[in-house]
Amino acid sequence: MPKLRLALAQTNPVVGQLSENLNACFDMVKNAAEHGANIVLFGEMAATGYPIEDLAIRNRFILDAASSIEAFASKLLNSGLGDTAVIIGHPAPVKSDSQRSGWAGAMNSASIIFGGKVHAQYSKHHLPNYGVFDEYRNFKPGSDLVVFDHSGLKFGIAICEDIWQSGGPVSGMKKAGVDCLLVLNGSPFEVTKGDERLEVIQDVARDQDCAIAYVNLVGGQDDLVFDGGSLMVDASGKVVGRGKQFANDLVIFDLIDKNNIEPVKASPADKPDELWQIWQALVTGLRDYVDKNGFKSVILGLSGGIDSAVCAALAVDAIGRSRVFGVSMPSKYSSEHSKSDAFDLATRLGIDCRTEAIKGLVKPVEKQLKAKDLASENLQARMRGVILMTLSNLEGHLVLTTGNKSELAVGYSTIYGDSVGGFAPLKDVEKTLVWTLAQWRNNFALASGEIEPIPKNSIEKPPSAELRPGQVDQDSLPPYDLLDGILAAYINERLSREEITSRGYDEETVTKITNLVDRAEWKRRQGAIGPKITSTSFGRDRRMPITNKYSG
Amino acid sequence: MPKLRLALAQTNPVVGQLSENLNACFDMVKNAAEHGANIVLFGEMAATGYPIEDLAIRNRFILDAASSIEAFASKLLNSGLGDTAVIIGHPAPVKSDSQRSGWAGAMNSASIIFGGKVHAQYSKHHLPNYGVFDEYRNFKPGSDLVVFDHSGLKFGIAICEDIWQSGGPVSGMKKAGVDCLLVLNGSPFEVTKGDERLEVIQDVARDQDCAIAYVNLVGGQDDLVFDGGSLMVDASGKVVGRGKQFANDLVIFDLIDKNNIEPVKASPADKPDELWQIWQALVTGLRDYVDKNGFKSVILGLSGGIDSAVCAALAVDAIGRSRVFGVSMPSKYSSEHSKSDAFDLATRLGIDCRTEAIKGLVKPVEKQLKAKDLASENLQARMRGVILMTLSNLEGHLVLTTGNKSELAVGYSTIYGDSVGGFAPLKDVEKTLVWTLAQWRNNFALASGEIEPIPKNSIEKPPSAELRPGQVDQDSLPPYDLLDGILAAYINERLSREEITSRGYDEETVTKITNLVDRAEWKRRQGAIGPKITSTSFGRDRRMPITNKYSG
Repeated sequence: MPKLRLALAQTNPVVGQLSENLNACFDMVKNAAEHGANIVLFGEMAATGYPIEDLAIRNRFILDAASSIEAFASKLLNSGLGDTAVIIGHPAPVKSDSQRSGWAGAMNSASIIFGGKVHAQYSKHHLPNYGVFDEYRNFKPGSDLVVFDHSGLKFGIAICEDIWQSGGPVSGMKKAGVDCLLVLNGSPFEVTKGDERLEVIQDVARDQDCAIAYVNLVGGQDDLVFDGGSLMVDASGKVVGRGKQFANDLVIFDLIDKNNIEPVKASPADKPDELWQIWQALVTGLRDYVDKNGFKSVILGLSGGIDSAVCAALAVDAIGRSRVFGVSMPSKYSSEHSKSDAFDLATRLGIDCRTEAIKGLVKPVEKQLKAKDLASENLQARMRGVILMTLSNLEGHLVLTTGNKSELAVGYSTIYGDSVGGFAPLKDVEKTLVWTLAQWRNNFALASGEIEPIPKNSIEKPPSAELRPGQVDQDSLPPYDLLDGILAAYINERLSREEITSRGYDEETVTKITNLVDRAEWKRRQGAIGPKITSTSFGRDRRMPITNKYSG
Repeated sequence: MPKLRLALAQTNPVVGQLSENLNACFDMVKNAAEHGANIVLFGEMAATGYPIEDLAIRNRFILDAASSIEAFASKLLNSGLGDTAVIIGHPAPVKSDSQRSGWAGAMNSASIIFGGKVHAQYSKHHLPNYGVFDEYRNFKPGSDLVVFDHSGLKFGIAICEDIWQSGGPVSGMKKAGVDCLLVLNGSPFEVTKGDERLEVIQDVARDQDCAIAYVNLVGGQDDLVFDGGSLMVDASGKVVGRGKQFANDLVIFDLIDKNNIEPVKASPADKPDELWQIWQALVTGLRDYVDKNGFKSVILGLSGGIDSAVCAALAVDAIGRSRVFGVSMPSKYSSEHSKSDAFDLATRLGIDCRTEAIKGLVKPVEKQLKAKDLASENLQARMRGVILMTLSNLEGHLVLTTGNKSELAVGYSTIYGDSVGGFAPLKDVEKTLVWTLAQWRNNFALASGEIEPIPKNSIEKPPSAELRPGQVDQDSLPPYDLLDGILAAYINERLSREEITSRGYDEETVTKITNLVDRAEWKRRQGAIGPKITSTSFGRDRRMPITNKYSG
């Protein structure tokens, strides 16, 4: 006989949108209650969205969030949902007698709501302050354990980082006799992070001899993508069921005891394909940036190359073909295939594509300023930027910038040229992965009986910026597999030049590439945001000085 | 009879440039020793520059810094300077048995060097992780006190934030019998911060009954400006002498005991004028960005308006007239005075100025894309951006972007237009302060018998972007004193819309302005860096989500 029905609610909140976020949570609780759930568990900061960054140090925001939680509790009671225990994440004010305002900062908390009231509040002990996280900046740590009983079972609470730190609150679960640990998470997607999460959860389950319900948020928030994929494991560490990845979901389990848990409504326990996950992460990040910021459509330059092709395909998957606009902007150096491949792509995707030649626009500037060489190359890219921004101003599109991570790393892009735009879908995707994704997406289409979205020619031809006659990327860069190897060692592994060379790379090449990376910091600092998919994305994940003479 | 001679050495390190920084320190020690100094105290991270940001989590950098300190100690000994005690700031590796590499992160440390060896190392206890600081991200805290004797006096050590935190290491100085606390600092300039520093130092001196030697770094590092202004106070809190502000300096005192200290070589104890300090901070930030990054010259658009006039004057004060290039870029809407005021400015400053009309460049784009209204206005600004970047590519100048803080706050600038550039001198200077500084600089010139650099007309005429006929800023914005009041309340004080309105501002205006601030976040994220002079500059000092629906 099941003792208790537990629902894991994956929601996609918008940062700062308190009432709408909590309305969505209310609907989830209602749905869960209709399925007979006794407890509904939400993600970290499900009420406010996550990360709230410096909103955490705006007094009024924290007080508003606290009031919203109280109103949410009352609404649940008044709607006949007072008997369902709801655990939801939100920031909570730290009360301090020494502060006139009664507010001395915020904690990253979870409230247990029952019978129209907040019965207890747990606050995160371990505040991550590495990578993209600034929680030690924005929150004060909690120090109490919260354990509660329901239907003869004992529950504990933890928030995200708490379970990654040995010796943290989680280490007291066994002693407290906890049957099931409820974990609220705002854990951004990273390639291979799903596996790491599962390992950590399984370790804690076995070590503390308790089941674990792990709820993650869903959706894009600026440069982060929360991938959902909530998990239920029993005390032996066995996965009982999952939530969907990259979609809102309500996952339901019956708990008989910590070793006997049955899925009522859940996805199977097997692991999804890695390239599918990456593609979905990019799609989700793009879609949510567009939709949460109220853009009706996106526009991007289509060069016939692989980067813009993959960006366009991502955009179509994210927001639909009718909302994606392409522009072919040939110059006097553009090859025939750069135009034909762009239109082939547009036809395959079914998106609007127009031609705006730049020749007649570049020429007057070139003439007036006597521009040549690099200045002239950059001028072409900048005129394309001007065209895209002007069309954006005229028609209201969000401009997508199509540069990939390898390019951004070495600064092979024109600032205020091909870098213009509000969102960079491939910002954290290295060039070799762009090709892999293109091939994967085409295969995925084939397998579904659909047209391959990306022209074969865009995948196969040698990459070129086409800013001077006959130019190809490999004139000035090593082959991309080699380049990406050096970049990953320097950026993600933070190795020294010497350590990278000792892996067998040519010393001169390593010096050249790493120096390019350092010198491009000022450009990256002015770049658009884009979805993080690796351990070390550009942006708040990697904070390097611009003025920096270190060369080790 | 003096017991001991103490030198406070203000240096201007470049981040990452280990040997050059330490060579400069060596010269300082040599100079100090020639003056008979027994102890030389440097600033926080004087060896590496500060802040080193994520260089702190590059294993090799930390090890290189540690080796450099050992080499520095040997060099001092070998040069006959082994008898001078040197206290210098640098990152130090945390040694951990559990790590294969022998490296488990870094600490923000100070080494006491004597007789060619590091005798003791103190590591900062309190790691600031607010505002522009990410030290909890980048360092591990120290926990030990370091006290040493010299010539019958007892010395303690603290690093920057340590003295701002009550109950920290500093609270043990009296008990330890310390006569003089040596404090190494990397304390960035902020208007009024000098006074705060002095108060804190005086409080600690009186409370712990010890003299305090406070050394601050000098110079610009990206968006931070270290203002020097080192201080010596006796145990009663009396200021005995200062170091120069915004310049390298070696300040020397004779310590008889904690209550009897005599300046040997120091600046007077009085406080410099606030507007002079701000001007110098902006000049220093600009000069060091240019010089440390190896730019020979700067270029900027001269519109005849106040912002570009003040930027040009700052640039001339920073790097000299021969390195500053102006460009007047009139459009069909440009007034006669916009051209004549630009050339008047150039003449007053003695800088090169050329005219590049944009009419013939804008027209083809306007025609091809059928641009009008906002698109057409932005297009003019973007064509100016194209011109400046092309000239930069052709001639090698750093482009300065001239926007002020009020403009950046409400997004009244064209992204990839007037915002182009690598450095933004007025990024943290609100519009009303731009006028005040212009007037101050002119008065300063008059008082020195020089020509006023900024044309009276640029100061007095109503500000306008001149992007359509008869346009002035106040068509769409409240008067600047009112605007700046609302902005300071919202940005620096982090007040809610309701709290700002309760100060007597019109509710509709407050709503409009604060909404503009929120909506411009994406543009600011792509903006150039510029020197911080207030408590809350844009950039890493204020980390707000772009996707953010909060409106409280």
